[in-house]
Amino acid sequence: MQRTDGSPGRPKGSVPRELRPSAGAGLDLPPSAPGPDAAPASINGRLLRYLLQSLGDPPVRVSLWNGETVAPAAGEALAHVRIENRASLLKLLADPEFQFGECFCDGSVEVEGDLVRLLEMLIRALSETASSAPTPRRVIERLRRRRANGTSDSRNNIRHHYDLGNAFYRLWLDRQLSYTCAYFPSPEITLEEAQIAKMDHVCRKLRLQPGEKVVEAGCGWGALALHMATRYGVHVKAFNISREQIAYAIERARALGADGRVEFIEDDYRNIRGRFDAFVSVGMLEHVGRENYHALGSLIDRVLEADGRGLIHSIGHLRPDPLNAWIEKRIFPGAYPPSLREILEVLEPSCFSVLDVENLRLHYALTLEHWLQRFDDARERVREMYDERFLRAWRLYLCGAQAAFRAGEMQLFQVLFARGRSNRVPWTRAYQYDRQE
Amino acid sequence: MQRTDGSPGRPKGSVPRELRPSAGAGLDLPPSAPGPDAAPASINGRLLRYLLQSLGDPPVRVSLWNGETVAPAAGEALAHVRIENRASLLKLLADPEFQFGECFCDGSVEVEGDLVRLLEMLIRALSETASSAPTPRRVIERLRRRRANGTSDSRNNIRHHYDLGNAFYRLWLDRQLSYTCAYFPSPEITLEEAQIAKMDHVCRKLRLQPGEKVVEAGCGWGALALHMATRYGVHVKAFNISREQIAYAIERARALGADGRVEFIEDDYRNIRGRFDAFVSVGMLEHVGRENYHALGSLIDRVLEADGRGLIHSIGHLRPDPLNAWIEKRIFPGAYPPSLREILEVLEPSCFSVLDVENLRLHYALTLEHWLQRFDDARERVREMYDERFLRAWRLYLCGAQAAFRAGEMQLFQVLFARGRSNRVPWTRAYQYDRQE
Repeated sequence: MQRTDGSPGRPKGSVPRELRPSAGAGLDLPPSAPGPDAAPASINGRLLRYLLQSLGDPPVRVSLWNGETVAPAAGEALAHVRIENRASLLKLLADPEFQFGECFCDGSVEVEGDLVRLLEMLIRALSETASSAPTPRRVIERLRRRRANGTSDSRNNIRHHYDLGNAFYRLWLDRQLSYTCAYFPSPEITLEEAQIAKMDHVCRKLRLQPGEKVVEAGCGWGALALHMATRYGVHVKAFNISREQIAYAIERARALGADGRVEFIEDDYRNIRGRFDAFVSVGMLEHVGRENYHALGSLIDRVLEADGRGLIHSIGHLRPDPLNAWIEKRIFPGAYPPSLREILEVLEPSCFSVLDVENLRLHYALTLEHWLQRFDDARERVREMYDERFLRAWRLYLCGAQAAFRAGEMQLFQVLFARGRSNRVPWTRAYQYDRQE
Repeated sequence: MQRTDGSPGRPKGSVPRELRPSAGAGLDLPPSAPGPDAAPASINGRLLRYLLQSLGDPPVRVSLWNGETVAPAAGEALAHVRIENRASLLKLLADPEFQFGECFCDGSVEVEGDLVRLLEMLIRALSETASSAPTPRRVIERLRRRRANGTSDSRNNIRHHYDLGNAFYRLWLDRQLSYTCAYFPSPEITLEEAQIAKMDHVCRKLRLQPGEKVVEAGCGWGALALHMATRYGVHVKAFNISREQIAYAIERARALGADGRVEFIEDDYRNIRGRFDAFVSVGMLEHVGRENYHALGSLIDRVLEADGRGLIHSIGHLRPDPLNAWIEKRIFPGAYPPSLREILEVLEPSCFSVLDVENLRLHYALTLEHWLQRFDDARERVREMYDERFLRAWRLYLCGAQAAFRAGEMQLFQVLFARGRSNRVPWTRAYQYDRQE
């Protein structure tokens, strides 16, 4: 239950115009509560209440441009949301999943309070009301066009995000620029420690032995490749199509004197050749596109030795579902977080045997909490480098991703596998927990 | 390469008849090697060599009823197989996967040597030649009718196997009659210890707390239900449609004074009602039938509390594939080992989050090694209770299953899950390895 207040502090210029009758047609609006304000004001209020109702009546206080406010009937409001004009209200009604991001970035929606908790609540509400969402919203969702991931599409999609400039990422990632979920054996350790723990967790799962050959598909700024080469004594070929990242990785390999053991290659994973004892891919599958899963599986099959092992680390969904539309358009074009069942479409046709799946969802929420803190500390610098809109977009993305992992909307899977007929597999998983670094 | 020997020791009554010309039509027979024998004898030899070729020329020595023998060109033979008549040779040619079992049971195929290793080799060979198998074999495979698993079908299918008499299973299972894959923290421990370790592994994964309510779907002779109730202080409702097993379990609960905490119910899992903190099912999914996976997932969704946990333990395949035809017909009617991707068809539609998957394939091979040893020790008793054919069928099943797990044909998955939106999930998996009992 909610109440509509006609606030006396309504600015003069924002007296609501008459709403065209067609805008509410077919919507089952809550009854108008007669108040001190005139009828036109209450139409906006009714639309707002309808919006909140369709989102499961979250405990937020929402004000309109005209000062009208809807507050939770009971309990404290988790945040205060201001909608600055009617256009934004209508956009939110039609497509809240996408338009919340758009309006937040252009400043026509403002949030005071805990943005992460607000978004977590909205994500939980949207997931519960998905099947009963208003028809226009479902139609819009179905009409959305997603990006493809052919070789040249991939290059464009990846450059959109990863070639923003290393200086930007250096502001808020860990020192080695690991831009994937960290692993916190204990939640209290630092982000730097947790990223190293993640790399050790991966290397240990793969049981890397000195002298072995490893191929990495999608190596980011090279942290894992360099870690494997310098700490586990393996030879690594690491592929990535982001020019900025590869240039940085090559530079770092030289500085570490590891360039004899790690080869960074600016190329598509589809061009991997050779034979390897281990295949590893951390945070690339999201960008591969489901239509390419079978080919990726065949590639792994082609390059892995008979007793080889592989590990795929990827964000995922509980079930097949597109990425949040705003994130897909503004932040990660072409990205698709697969369900675990879809991830197995990579491995099953080539008869790989899944040895071990671990879900690190809450570790990604914590990783994002660290990133957000650092990002907020660097916000003046980000504003100088880009602009206010960019700053707001990235802050929303970091908050929204954290919220999505907390709400269970996003999952993080590590899938360890070997060839189906190989008996050189670990007897139990105790070896993964023998020593924690 | 192989050679055909016309053995002088051929028994008189088994002079080969002329083969009907149609029998070899369409088969690309290896060229006849002229030998001391007459042409009719070499037709059998050629058919035998064709059979072996289609199986990837395994290193076995095979003799026919007429004394003709094919031996490996190089290296030692792993086993000596005798085919006692032409009908059996033709059956093997048409459908080796099914007819090997049939002929072995009626004694028209005899094996001297290591049956497990022989079967492992044949399974590996069949899996590699599956796509290039001769046409008649593939047609037969496609025509096979599989059993359904409606409620009454399930009862018949389950009784066929599990109601053979508890006395029979007591001869070769562990003391508590756990008829599923054991867990060997170290391969040297006994079967009794490993079955207890398996139950503790499952209970630990589920993080059972005293006073919680647990439902078990398909409880066998009740070992796990009793273990959970007596060692972890939980209240258990355990379902099974095998009358003999339930009667035994109820008796044991009484003897242990646990009948206040464990309720054994002779009923189909589809009739589970109530709300539980944990759902567990060990070795039932194989009998559920893929057409019922969605309903099973909905049932778990209905009965699990908001922060509930679940574990499904099931044999599986690397990819969708029917069970070996002979095992399905003679041993486990209606059984279907799903691929891991298919197992997720149970969980995904209800938005369960997979937390952890472990593959214990080699633990099942070792479990079966223990069972076979005990079965062989009890073979005189089995022959007395049933007959020679039954003894041979069950020995073949135990050897074949062990071979299938060794060859990677069969997998064993433990899938741990929770509701997708619940954050009461373990932080890491270290808790599973804190103490090994």
